[in-house]
Amino acid sequence: MILEIVTTGTELLLGQIFNTNAPYLAEKLNEMGFDVVYQTTVGDNRERMAHVLQTALERADIVITSGGMGPTQGDITKEVTASLFNRAMYVHEPSLERIRTLFTRRQMAMPQSNERQAMIPEGAIVVDNDWGTAPGVILEDGGKTIINLPGPPRELESMFSHAIAPYLAKRYGGQGTIVSRVLHTYGISESALEERISDYITKQTNPTLALLVRPGGEIIVRLTAKAADKPSATALIAKLEEELRQQIGEYIFGVDGVSLGEVVGKALMERKLKISLAESCTGGLVTSRITDVPGSSSYLLGSVVCYDNSIKISQVGVAEATLREYGAVSYQTALQMAGGIRHRFGSDLGVGITGIAGPGGDTSDKPVGLVYVAIDGPRGSEHYKFNFSGERTYIKERTAYTVLNLIRKYLET
Amino acid sequence: MILEIVTTGTELLLGQIFNTNAPYLAEKLNEMGFDVVYQTTVGDNRERMAHVLQTALERADIVITSGGMGPTQGDITKEVTASLFNRAMYVHEPSLERIRTLFTRRQMAMPQSNERQAMIPEGAIVVDNDWGTAPGVILEDGGKTIINLPGPPRELESMFSHAIAPYLAKRYGGQGTIVSRVLHTYGISESALEERISDYITKQTNPTLALLVRPGGEIIVRLTAKAADKPSATALIAKLEEELRQQIGEYIFGVDGVSLGEVVGKALMERKLKISLAESCTGGLVTSRITDVPGSSSYLLGSVVCYDNSIKISQVGVAEATLREYGAVSYQTALQMAGGIRHRFGSDLGVGITGIAGPGGDTSDKPVGLVYVAIDGPRGSEHYKFNFSGERTYIKERTAYTVLNLIRKYLET
Repeated sequence: MILEIVTTGTELLLGQIFNTNAPYLAEKLNEMGFDVVYQTTVGDNRERMAHVLQTALERADIVITSGGMGPTQGDITKEVTASLFNRAMYVHEPSLERIRTLFTRRQMAMPQSNERQAMIPEGAIVVDNDWGTAPGVILEDGGKTIINLPGPPRELESMFSHAIAPYLAKRYGGQGTIVSRVLHTYGISESALEERISDYITKQTNPTLALLVRPGGEIIVRLTAKAADKPSATALIAKLEEELRQQIGEYIFGVDGVSLGEVVGKALMERKLKISLAESCTGGLVTSRITDVPGSSSYLLGSVVCYDNSIKISQVGVAEATLREYGAVSYQTALQMAGGIRHRFGSDLGVGITGIAGPGGDTSDKPVGLVYVAIDGPRGSEHYKFNFSGERTYIKERTAYTVLNLIRKYLET
Repeated sequence: MILEIVTTGTELLLGQIFNTNAPYLAEKLNEMGFDVVYQTTVGDNRERMAHVLQTALERADIVITSGGMGPTQGDITKEVTASLFNRAMYVHEPSLERIRTLFTRRQMAMPQSNERQAMIPEGAIVVDNDWGTAPGVILEDGGKTIINLPGPPRELESMFSHAIAPYLAKRYGGQGTIVSRVLHTYGISESALEERISDYITKQTNPTLALLVRPGGEIIVRLTAKAADKPSATALIAKLEEELRQQIGEYIFGVDGVSLGEVVGKALMERKLKISLAESCTGGLVTSRITDVPGSSSYLLGSVVCYDNSIKISQVGVAEATLREYGAVSYQTALQMAGGIRHRFGSDLGVGITGIAGPGGDTSDKPVGLVYVAIDGPRGSEHYKFNFSGERTYIKERTAYTVLNLIRKYLET
């Protein structure tokens, strides 16, 4: 069963709003076991919309549209759908009544134009709208189905979950069950990760396997299994996961939507350790990420953003001689930041981060993207050197993720 | 000149990520006067991608793709494009050299698979990638053009603005001129803003006018004028902007892509003032936003994230009695944080931020979303109270924008 989603609306074509309907429908339909293989966006233009729907009907069994169901002259989706199926339009009295009632409840007079929303192609199934005036429409013909849904996300989502999903399940049931599991990895590039598991990628059928790059250098591996029932799908996933963990287990920091900040927080909590940070080039971003996690106040004491060298000296305890001799961007300074913040804040773990985020500030031997990180804690101090490339905010972000991953590894060792 | 945008990637079809490339490209192309009339999304499937690109070439003059340019076996966009135009692929040595260099700079060995990224269809124009390993490709044939761009937004956007936009302007110029201007506002809701300028919204033709809500509560007003030449379009915009400023001028903090952080930085620099912050509920996010701006080291001394109350006392100088009597989330504490950090860091301006980001931590008289901000500076101290609603990271983000706007207003008064 092949599905195509057609989103309509000139504001989408102009790039003025994000298309949230297509990913919403795609996710829900995929979970139900339907294959959404095309998504198309077209404006409120009769000829072009007809062409898009015609193409969709040729290559898909079910076409779901969103938008163009309003009361204005530009709202043409139902008309275009009806004419493709050679159906006349008629006034659907129950819908007209619903629209009138809605206006009465809002204590407003119904504009004449809203009558258009009660016009329905002959032979269509009408779907009530819980949140607005536009009814939805299901039209079947010659083995093909078009479903017209309204554009406002709240109306579309409600209509989909209350009426369309049950209709599809009943009408085309037996698509089986799909179960997904996401493995989150850090510290390995996409291509290196792929090489390690290339056998599984090449021979994938069920479960399937997809790599996705997330901001900050995180790579996720999504396993998706299709089976007649949930236990069978889950078992397929479990088997593949076990095999993958033998190849890339060291890089996997969590599953199913967990963040590095959460993993670090959990590790600190379990070990009853408190942490503090001295951040320079990241400007507080690492600490902010740690505090994105609810309950982080139980393990984060706080941080100093020691942007100016005078603050590194006065508030973190870096020696003036160290800055003079090795520079602010050096492993020596990072180590003193880590040790200094740990001592001053009385935490179990201290982290120091210093680097050149750019675009200025580089020298011949210290390029933009050079970052030193140090961790000082119960098992002594460690320091690390990185050369990131990219623009300022990217280097900050990349550094922030890297630091969280280093803390995780320090704790797990 | 008809354009179609084709975004590829199974993760898009599964609804796992939002499609930001299509609206980005659509907006930029429309601004250049090109008509983007179709947008299609297809997965990493050879046959279906070929069908989508074939259809696109039939109905559009220029087809721009995003995604499927990576090193993996699932990355097939260039190959499908080449075969539609009957072109062989060859190793483009300069691209291979760029990719090798990138890996060398990262101090990593280049995986064999990355060589695939240097494979180019014969006769194509190769576009360098400033931020990644995948070069872009422009292929012309029989009056039709396909442009393949990489999927990561940062790579695509940089490539588009540096190379593709100039190429399109030179090759297909004369689309008329569209001039846009963006007014950035803060501190007013979308509906209140709309009410203030509703006359202009209702009667808009040329220039047109669109309101867009950005993260953190920023609302932007985009003015777009179309004219035969740039001076005429600019004049239309200037007239409308002047009229709008009479209605909403107090909320406009900048134009054309400027950020609140940049505006604050410029104001501090002009007044030769240094700033420091004591952040609690925002966890360093405000300082991080300030340091997103290049050159911020000239006005930011640094900050203390005083998450734990002991740190508020020891590192910022908040009185124990204040915490006991009024609590950590109080204007009294915010004021002492602002004054304390200013004094300890020796800055001209001190900022204190304390609140309840949730989901826990609320009490009957102090709900989640309650935030106090104080500024201490040359013209004395001010404090402010807010009640935000939403989840933890939203409250942090909303607070961060609000604090930047308060600093701006403190400085401008």
